[in-house]
Order: sequence, then C-alpha cells, then structure tokens
Amino acid sequence: MAITFYDLCGKDRARFSPYGWRTRMALAHKGLDYALELVTFTDKEKIAFSGQKLVPVIRDGETVVSDSFAIAAYLEDAYGDRPSLFGSAEGRGMAKALNGYVDRMVQPLIAPLIVADVFACVGETCKDYFRTSREQRFGMTLEAFQAGRDEKLAAFRTALEPVRLVVKDQPFIGGVAPTYADYILFGSMQWARLTSTFRLVESDDPIHAWVDRLLDAHGGVAREEPIAAQVA
Amino acid sequence: MAITFYDLCGKDRARFSPYGWRTRMALAHKGLDYALELVTFTDKEKIAFSGQKLVPVIRDGETVVSDSFAIAAYLEDAYGDRPSLFGSAEGRGMAKALNGYVDRMVQPLIAPLIVADVFACVGETCKDYFRTSREQRFGMTLEAFQAGRDEKLAAFRTALEPVRLVVKDQPFIGGVAPTYADYILFGSMQWARLTSTFRLVESDDPIHAWVDRLLDAHGGVAREEPIAAQVA
Repeated sequence: MAITFYDLCGKDRARFSPYGWRTRMALAHKGLDYALELVTFTDKEKIAFSGQKLVPVIRDGETVVSDSFAIAAYLEDAYGDRPSLFGSAEGRGMAKALNGYVDRMVQPLIAPLIVADVFACVGETCKDYFRTSREQRFGMTLEAFQAGRDEKLAAFRTALEPVRLVVKDQPFIGGVAPTYADYILFGSMQWARLTSTFRLVESDDPIHAWVDRLLDAHGGVAREEPIAAQVA
Repeated sequence: MAITFYDLCGKDRARFSPYGWRTRMALAHKGLDYALELVTFTDKEKIAFSGQKLVPVIRDGETVVSDSFAIAAYLEDAYGDRPSLFGSAEGRGMAKALNGYVDRMVQPLIAPLIVADVFACVGETCKDYFRTSREQRFGMTLEAFQAGRDEKLAAFRTALEPVRLVVKDQPFIGGVAPTYADYILFGSMQWARLTSTFRLVESDDPIHAWVDRLLDAHGGVAREEPIAAQVA
C-alpha cells in the first residue's frame, strides 16, 4: 500500500489522539493497509511536509492530506469502491456538521475532565511542551483545570444527548453499521478511555453500549489498543 | 391526496412554528399535496386523535404520526419513490443526531431573543395561554426573558458554527440540494424571521445566505409565507 498514516503518540508508543482515532477507524472501515509513522507532541518536523503542525496526516502516493475530516473525505473519494464512510453525498455534509458539533460542543467539555490524566500518558521528552502549551491555553495549571471534575460531568453528559437520542434506538448513528459520523465522537470517547480511569458515562447510558459496539468494530482494532491510563 | 397536515397557527392564520416548518418543507421536498388544518395554541382537542398535544401532526389514510422527525421518517418510507429527505439510510441517523443538536443546543438560545415578539403574533384567544405557559417555563415574564438580547446573541451565533462550517463551502448541509438536515435548523430560522424583526445573523454570515437559498427552495414556499412580525 502507498498510504502512510502519521499519528500522534505518547509514551510507550501510546496512540490516544481523538483525531487520530477518527482517521484510524476510517482506514479500518475502508479496509486499507498503511505504513504507520508515530509523531510525538514535539516531533512536528516529521510532518513539516504537510505544511502544518497537526496530526493526523496521511500521504498517499503524491497526495498529502491533513485535518481528520479532510482525510475522511479524501479516502471516500479515492477509495470509492470500498465501504462508504458517509453512505451518500448527503451524508457527507451531515457528517461534517456533526464533526463541528463534536469539535465545538463536546470535545471542549472532555478536556477539563481528563487533561491531567492525559499528561501522565505523554512521553518524558514532551511533558514540558504539553504542560506549557495547555496551561497557556487554559490559563491555569492542568491540575487546577481538572479539579472539581465531578461537577463538570453533567454538562458533558448533556452535550451527548443529540447522539444518545439516536443510538438508544439503533446500533450506530449511521444505522445498523458504523459510519464516519460514529467515528467522530468515538474518537473523543476513546481518547478518554485510553488516558483516564475517570468514567465519562454510566454503564447504563446508551452511549456506553454504543462505544462498546465501536470497540468491537473492524476486528476490534479500537479494543486492542493498550490502555495507557495510570491507575491513580 | 390522503394527507392532512395539522400545523400550528397564530393570529391571521400565521404559520410560524419551527417544527411545523420542518414538516412543511419535508412535504414540499416530497412534492406531496395535503389538506391543511390549522390548530391554534389552545385548540388542541383538534389533534386529540393523535394521542398527544403537539403539532405538527399528519394523518395519511389510517396512519397518524406526530413529532416532526417521526413525520419525516414516515414520509421517507411511505413515499420512497419521491426525492429522498435523507439521501441514504446512513443519512437518516445523522439527520436525527442533527435534529437533537438543533432542538437541545440551538432552539433554546433563540427563544430568549424573540419570545416577546412571538407573543405579538399569537391570536387574541391564545395570548393568555401563551404568556402563562411560557412564563411558567422561563420563570419570568416574556419581556424579562427577552431583555438584554443583544448580549445573548453571541452565544446563539456560536451555536450555529457546526452548520456554518458546512454551508460556507457548499449550498446546503446535504450538498448541492437541500435535505431534511437543512430543514431542521431552517425551521428555527424561519420561526424567528416570521415573528421578529430582530436580526439573528449578519447579512455576511454564511448562515444568512443558506437561509436565503432555502427560502427559494421548492418554488419559494417558505418565502411566500407572510411575515407576521410587528414592526416595533
């Protein structure tokens, strides 16, 4: 295969990036093999060829694509004979809107629940960078940002309601089989699952059962990833 | 045609219900004729046969369906030979998640911007009911709830970002033609457009141009509806 997938990694080659998981599930959905290149938080010269500093990135022959949604759209077009990620042209736009909902309205509510736990999963050479960049963004220490997380949980769980309303009645957002619309939020849930022992949803939440189904999807690629979380 | 569409109306038969507009656009999308039955806020015995108190309701022969999303799903299945509302089975679930996002995260941010204006569009016989029920829900007068709306506008506009990110690059959420995913948020924008002169989005906002395109859709059915708003 000609595809190289540049994914973020923490210590011990742990792969927990929420956006990386979107791409990883999309590649699995399409049944595409790829060469893996791991990129640490501070090793961004490795993807300088992409003209930007964020993973995931894929290189497919002469084509370079960054941004997880753009990667999914590229894979859908370039590998149109493989199982569809969006179901239809109409579904692609809908998935993009759901991508915006997760990025803007869900993902920011997870960071205050787990970010200090994520820090523990970052490799030694990247810890200073991770702490400094995040503390600058949040305007406080990682530990202060994560403090009182039990009180912040309700707002996060409420923000999942649009997806919960769907997956309480059907296996996946896309219906009987997962689609890219599922992988978007799944990436965030998998990020938290791999880096933290903090329970984001109750076991009787339809979201929990939906995550569990996605962990089994595509040969269990997401369940096979080792849990990086430190037990406190 | 065997379809009867029960839609909410205010004074002078004004039809501004956001959920009613979702159904109205869905019927137009499918090219279905229907008999119209207008239901005022206090005339709910007219839809008692549906076993609940909310419009829109459709009756199609022996079949009665309430809840705007359920109506769309019914129309898609019953009129599968007409243009698809969802594009695909996958798109149906995605649209349902977007329905949840608009209902839970957008619609509640519009009410504080226009509810006193909506009140002015309610028929005389329903004004007491409307005021009492809404003031009980909001815990304050309609006027107090709408006060300071300029300061509440930014949060509403931010909540549109998931859709804005799509329609800045393509005509509709569903791509080159509108789908039910478009009609969901459009219903809310049309509700505000018909009942209030308050400007929800700037004229250079991609959302504004997208609303404008939907006003032209299906023979301009949405643009033809008379503006009910009182000029203050």
